[in-house]
Amino acid sequence: MSLVVRNIRRADAAAIDALAGFGVATVHEAQGRKGLLAPYMRPIYRPAAIAGSAVTCEVAPGDNWMIHVAVEQCQAGDILVVAPTSPCEDGYFGDLLATSLMARGVRGLIIDAGVRDIAVLTEMAFPVWSKAVYAQGTVKETIGNVNLPLVCAGALVNPGDVIVADDDGVCVVRREEAASVAEKSRQREANEVDKRAQLQAGVLGLDLYKMREKLAEKGLKWVDEAPQ
Amino acid sequence: MSLVVRNIRRADAAAIDALAGFGVATVHEAQGRKGLLAPYMRPIYRPAAIAGSAVTCEVAPGDNWMIHVAVEQCQAGDILVVAPTSPCEDGYFGDLLATSLMARGVRGLIIDAGVRDIAVLTEMAFPVWSKAVYAQGTVKETIGNVNLPLVCAGALVNPGDVIVADDDGVCVVRREEAASVAEKSRQREANEVDKRAQLQAGVLGLDLYKMREKLAEKGLKWVDEAPQ
Amino acid sequence: MSLVVRNIRRADAAAIDALAGFGVATVHEAQGRKGLLAPYMRPIYRPAAIAGSAVTCEVAPGDNWMIHVAVEQCQAGDILVVAPTSPCEDGYFGDLLATSLMARGVRGLIIDAGVRDIAVLTEMAFPVWSKAVYAQGTVKETIGNVNLPLVCAGALVNPGDVIVADDDGVCVVRREEAASVAEKSRQREANEVDKRAQLQAGVLGLDLYKMREKLAEKGLKWVDEAPQ
Amino acid sequence: MSLVVRNIRRADAAAIDALAGFGVATVHEAQGRKGLLAPYMRPIYRPAAIAGSAVTCEVAPGDNWMIHVAVEQCQAGDILVVAPTSPCEDGYFGDLLATSLMARGVRGLIIDAGVRDIAVLTEMAFPVWSKAVYAQGTVKETIGNVNLPLVCAGALVNPGDVIVADDDGVCVVRREEAASVAEKSRQREANEVDKRAQLQAGVLGLDLYKMREKLAEKGLKWVDEAPQ
Amino acid sequence: MSLVVRNIRRADAAAIDALAGFGVATVHEAQGRKGLLAPYMRPIYRPAAIAGSAVTCEVAPGDNWMIHVAVEQCQAGDILVVAPTSPCEDGYFGDLLATSLMARGVRGLIIDAGVRDIAVLTEMAFPVWSKAVYAQGTVKETIGNVNLPLVCAGALVNPGDVIVADDDGVCVVRREEAASVAEKSRQREANEVDKRAQLQAGVLGLDLYKMREKLAEKGLKWVDEAPQ
Amino acid sequence: MSLVVRNIRRADAAAIDALAGFGVATVHEAQGRKGLLAPYMRPIYRPAAIAGSAVTCEVAPGDNWMIHVAVEQCQAGDILVVAPTSPCEDGYFGDLLATSLMARGVRGLIIDAGVRDIAVLTEMAFPVWSKAVYAQGTVKETIGNVNLPLVCAGALVNPGDVIVADDDGVCVVRREEAASVAEKSRQREANEVDKRAQLQAGVLGLDLYKMREKLAEKGLKWVDEAPQ
Repeated sequence: MSLVVRNIRRADAAAIDALAGFGVATVHEAQGRKGLLAPYMRPIYRPAAIAGSAVTCEVAPGDNWMIHVAVEQCQAGDILVVAPTSPCEDGYFGDLLATSLMARGVRGLIIDAGVRDIAVLTEMAFPVWSKAVYAQGTVKETIGNVNLPLVCAGALVNPGDVIVADDDGVCVVRREEAASVAEKSRQREANEVDKRAQLQAGVLGLDLYKMREKLAEKGLKWVDEAPQ
Repeated sequence: MSLVVRNIRRADAAAIDALAGFGVATVHEAQGRKGLLAPYMRPIYRPAAIAGSAVTCEVAPGDNWMIHVAVEQCQAGDILVVAPTSPCEDGYFGDLLATSLMARGVRGLIIDAGVRDIAVLTEMAFPVWSKAVYAQGTVKETIGNVNLPLVCAGALVNPGDVIVADDDGVCVVRREEAASVAEKSRQREANEVDKRAQLQAGVLGLDLYKMREKLAEKGLKWVDEAPQ
Repeated sequence: MSLVVRNIRRADAAAIDALAGFGVATVHEAQGRKGLLAPYMRPIYRPAAIAGSAVTCEVAPGDNWMIHVAVEQCQAGDILVVAPTSPCEDGYFGDLLATSLMARGVRGLIIDAGVRDIAVLTEMAFPVWSKAVYAQGTVKETIGNVNLPLVCAGALVNPGDVIVADDDGVCVVRREEAASVAEKSRQREANEVDKRAQLQAGVLGLDLYKMREKLAEKGLKWVDEAPQ
Repeated sequence: MSLVVRNIRRADAAAIDALAGFGVATVHEAQGRKGLLAPYMRPIYRPAAIAGSAVTCEVAPGDNWMIHVAVEQCQAGDILVVAPTSPCEDGYFGDLLATSLMARGVRGLIIDAGVRDIAVLTEMAFPVWSKAVYAQGTVKETIGNVNLPLVCAGALVNPGDVIVADDDGVCVVRREEAASVAEKSRQREANEVDKRAQLQAGVLGLDLYKMREKLAEKGLKWVDEAPQ
Repeated sequence: MSLVVRNIRRADAAAIDALAGFGVATVHEAQGRKGLLAPYMRPIYRPAAIAGSAVTCEVAPGDNWMIHVAVEQCQAGDILVVAPTSPCEDGYFGDLLATSLMARGVRGLIIDAGVRDIAVLTEMAFPVWSKAVYAQGTVKETIGNVNLPLVCAGALVNPGDVIVADDDGVCVVRREEAASVAEKSRQREANEVDKRAQLQAGVLGLDLYKMREKLAEKGLKWVDEAPQ
Repeated sequence: MSLVVRNIRRADAAAIDALAGFGVATVHEAQGRKGLLAPYMRPIYRPAAIAGSAVTCEVAPGDNWMIHVAVEQCQAGDILVVAPTSPCEDGYFGDLLATSLMARGVRGLIIDAGVRDIAVLTEMAFPVWSKAVYAQGTVKETIGNVNLPLVCAGALVNPGDVIVADDDGVCVVRREEAASVAEKSRQREANEVDKRAQLQAGVLGLDLYKMREKLAEKGLKWVDEAPQ
C-alpha cells in the first residue's frame, strides 16, 4: 500500500523567502554544515536560486506516475522533491509537467533522476536540479508515496522541510529550524561584509583570522627555498 | 582490412528537417521509445538543435585518422557520428576538422569520445555532442571503417539513419522510418497543444489523463495526516 | 612537518602572457602532448582563458586551512593550484578567498576538489577550474605543504610552472620550457592559418596532409556499396 | 556541539538472528522493497552474511576519530555503521579497530567510505561492507555524532535498527519492524520451496505464475520468425 | 507492440564448444578485435568460462517480466542475454530464475544490469556476468522484445550469436562466423605455444617479434642515463 | 623523440624485501601518508603482496608497444609500472608478456589501464594491480619513454623507486627513503603489537590513546538518551 498525505506543515513564508536570498553555501554553514544533497545534483540552467517547501514524491525506476499525483499536493511556494526507489536517470519530467507545476505556483523541481525538455524548461524559466538530463521516457504502472519522508541524493527530506537551491547545489533545512537558520544566515552574511572589505583591501586571512600562531604550533615552517 | 563505403542511402530531406523541429524527447516517444544514445552525450553549447543523415566513422582509441577519411564522405545536411573501438575520452576533433566539415555543409558532430577547441567551435556555431571535453591529442596510425553500422554511446547507428540532437541529448531514427516518425512526432505535438493549455489553466494531469480510478485500484490511499 | 616555500622562480611574464593567447590544445601539442590535467577539471563559467605561474598548495581532505596560507605566497599574475592528499569534492573555496586572491592580482584557481559560491565567482569574473561544485564546508585543522611539487588531477605541477587554462581544460608547462613552448605554439598557430583557409575553401585533409597513399598501404579500401 | 547517545533500544535478538539467515534479497522483499543501501557497498570477502543492531557513527571526511568513540557504545551482536559528512574514500578502518570491535563481540562494519588492512581483516574473519578499499590514513581532529540517525549509502539508519548484510549488499530493517519482517521473510522462504522444486522440475514461471494471459493483454505477440 | 521470436538459428555446437575453450581475449583477437562488451561486465565468481547461443531479452528499467518470457525460448546450450531499455542496476535475476534456466540446460546469464542471490548462484555454479550486484527488487508491468537484436553493454547482439564469457569479460561472435572464428582462434593458440616457450626461455619479445628496427625508425633512443 | 634509459639506481634489496612484509597501509603511514596510488588500482587476485623496484613505462592509449621495450630493462626483483598518456582501459597486458616478465624474475605489474588473461595470470601466480580487466587488444604503433618519471594513478613514480602492493592497493616509496621507511615501518609494527594485545583484551582506544579529554574540549557530549 502506498500513501498520499494531503496536509503537511510548512515553514513560515518569510523565513523561506529569507533563505532564498542567502544561498546554499551560507545556509548550509549557518545550520551547522548539514543537509546538503549530493554534488551530482546540478541546475539545468544558471543562474538559478530558489527556496520553498518540500512536497516529497517517491517514484519507481522508469515510472513517473506518482509525479502526476504529487502535483495535486503542491501549493504556491512549494518545491517538488522526487526520488526513485532505486537509482535511475530516466527523463521523468518535461515541459508538460512543468506547465502544470507553474500553474500552481510551484517554484522548481529537485529530482534525483533525469529530466528532459530542458531547452523549453529554460525558456519557461522553470528551474530544475537533477542528476541527469536524459530524454528516456517513463511508464505509469507503479505507485509510491507522496509526502512521506524520503532520502533524496543522500539527504533525508521531510515533507514541509525547506529546500534551498542555487548554482552551488541543493540544501534541505528542517521545517522547525527554518526561522532560526534564516536568522543565523543573516548574521553570517552581515559578519562577512566587513571581512570581505578587509580582504579586498589586502588584509590576509592569516591575519584577519589570526591563524599564524596556531599554524606554527601544528608544526608549519616557512622557508625561503625548497629543500633539495 | 577496413572499408570506406561511398554510397549510402539517406532519408528524405523534408522528413529530416521536420524531425529537427520536434526535438529529441518527442521523436524518441514518437518512435516507441527507442534509439537514445547514453545520457553522458552532452552538447558543448546550448541551445543547439539539429537533425541530419548519419555518416558513421569508427576510430581506434587515441587515433583520429579515420575522421579525415570520413569528411570526404560527408554531404550537406549530414551529421558525422564517431565511435572508438574501445572507450576513450581523447580530443579527437577540433576547429580545423570543424572548418572542413562546415565547408561541406555538415550540420554537426556526435562523438562517443572527447572534443577540443570548444571555445572556437562555439564561436563558429558548429554543434558537437560528446562524451568529454579534453585537449588530449591523437595520432594517425590505425585505420577503421567508414559508413558501416556501429554502436555509438550504446545505440546502433546505420549509415544514412537520421540523427536528431538537442539540449536533451541524441536520438537515432532508422532511415526507413524517418518519414513515419516525423509524422507521428507532428501528431504528438499537435496532441500536446490542447493538453498544455488545459494544464496551464490549472486542470490536473490526474483528471486530464483520468488516472484517479486506476491509482485507487493499484492501492493508492489519500490520507489527511501522515501515520505516526 | 609541513613547509611553506617563500621564494619560487617564475617564468618570464611575456612567455606566460603569450601562452594565454594560444589556448590549452595548442600549447599541449606544441610541447609534445604532455602536461594535461584530467578531463574532469572543468571551468565554472565559459568562456575563460588564463595563464599564470603556479603557486602549489596541498590540502587535507575536507580541510582548506592551507589555502589561507598559500594566499600570502601569491603575487600578481599567479594561479593557485590546490590538490588534496586524498580524493575529495568538498567546497574548499568560495567568494571570500576569491576576493583575497583578486586583491593580490591572482588570475584564477585550479583545484582538484570542489568549489562553492560559483554564482558570485562568476559575477566577480574570477575563473576556477575544479573537479566539482559543492557547497560542503571544510575545517581548518590539518597542515600541508605550500610551493612543493604536487600531483594535481593526474599531472605533476612544480611551483613556478606555467598553468594554461581555457574552456578545454588545464595544461601545465614547465617553467624552463615556457618561452620555447610559447614560440612553438606561435609557429603552430601560424602554420594553421593557411591550413584553415584551404579547408574552408573545400580542400580535404586527405589531400592537404597527403594521407591517401599511406591509408591504402595500411589496407584501407573504398567501395561503392556496403558488403552484404 | 556533537553528541554520543549511550542508550539505544535494540531489536529482539531472536528476530535479528532470524534475519541473518534469510539474506538481504529476501528481507528487502519481505519488508516491501525498502531499506537497501547503494549497490557500491561491497563486502571485502565472500561469502559473508550477518545481522545485528546498528550503532551509528558520523565522521568528518578524512577523520576517523569518532570511530574510536563509537567502539565504546558497541555491544555483542552490534554492527557499526559509519558514514562521512561528505563523500570520502579514505581508509578509516583497519585491523586495530577490528580487533577492538571483535573483543566487544561486534559482528561487522558497514562504512560508506574506505577500509584498509583487508588481508588481515579477511584472516580475522571480520566482515566489512565498504564503498572502497584504500590505504589512505585519516586524522583525529573533528568530532561528530554517535547514535543519532544518519544517512549511510543513501539509506536512513536509526541507531538500533537491524542491519542485514550478505554477498548481495546491505539492508536496514527498522527496529520496530524486525520481528514482523523476520516472520514475513520466513513465510517468503517457505513459499519459495515449492516454487523452486517446480522450476527445477521444468515447470515454467510463465505457467507457475500464470502470466500468459496478462502478457497477451499487454500486447505481447509470439511469432515463429523475426519480421524482416 | 512487443514480439517474442520463437525460432532462431544457432551456430554449430562444435564451434560453440571450441570457442568456450579459447577464452575471450583469444576469440576477440581472432575475429579482428570486435564484439567485446563493456569492461564493467564482471563475473559474479571466478574462474568461470562458458560459450553458448544468445537468447536476447529486452527489459524495462526495474522490470524483469520479460526474463520469465525469455526462459521459455531457451534451450540446452543457450546463454540468456538481458539488456534494459535505459540504464538500470536493479537485481533483475536471482536463484529462482537461475533454477529455471539450469533446468533447461542454459549455461549462464549476461545482464547489463544487476543480479542478486549471488551467494546461492555461486553455490549452484550458475555463472552470471553483470553490471552490478544489487538486491533491489523489480516489478512485472512492462513488456519488451525477446529474440530481436539488441545492444548489450555497448555491443550489438543478435539472437543466435555466440556469447563467449570468462574472467576477462564477455565477447559476442556472429553466428555465421562462429566456425571460422573458432578455427582462427585455434590457429592463434597453436601459434602462441612456441612463442610462450621462447619467452619462457628468456627470448625477448623485441627479438621474437623483430621490433628493434621499427622502433628505431620511429625515433626511439636508448641512453645509459636519464638526461638532466 | 622518446627515450629508454638503461641504467637506473635501485634501492637496497634488503630494504625492499622488508617493505614487502609490512604492507601498504603500514608503509604509507610510516612515510608520512604519501605515495598512494588511486583506490581504483585493484589486484586481479587476492591475497597478493609484493615489493620491488619500479621500471617505468609510458604508453599511448590503446598501444602496448613500449611494454615490449620495457621488458628488456627489467631485472629480477623489479616491478613494471605502466601508465598511458591519456586514460585508457584497454587490455595492454596478458599471459605472454607475463611469461616474459616472469622469466626475468619480475615480481608483478602495476598498470593504470586494463589487463587480460587474468585466469591464466592467476594460475601463473603473476600478480597485477590494474584499473580494469578488459580483453580489448592494443596496437604497436606509437613510442613512449621507459625509465623516465611518470604519474601513475595519480602518484609520481621515479624509476628505481620502490613499489609496495598488497590487497589494500599500491604505494610508492622514494628510492632514497626506502631504508628509512622500512625502519619506520618496523617500529610502527613493533609499536602495534602491544596495542593490539590491549585492544584484544578489551582496553578501549579512547583510553589507550587518551582521547577522552581532548574530545570533551572539542565539545563532545555524552548523553543517556537522544534529544527529542
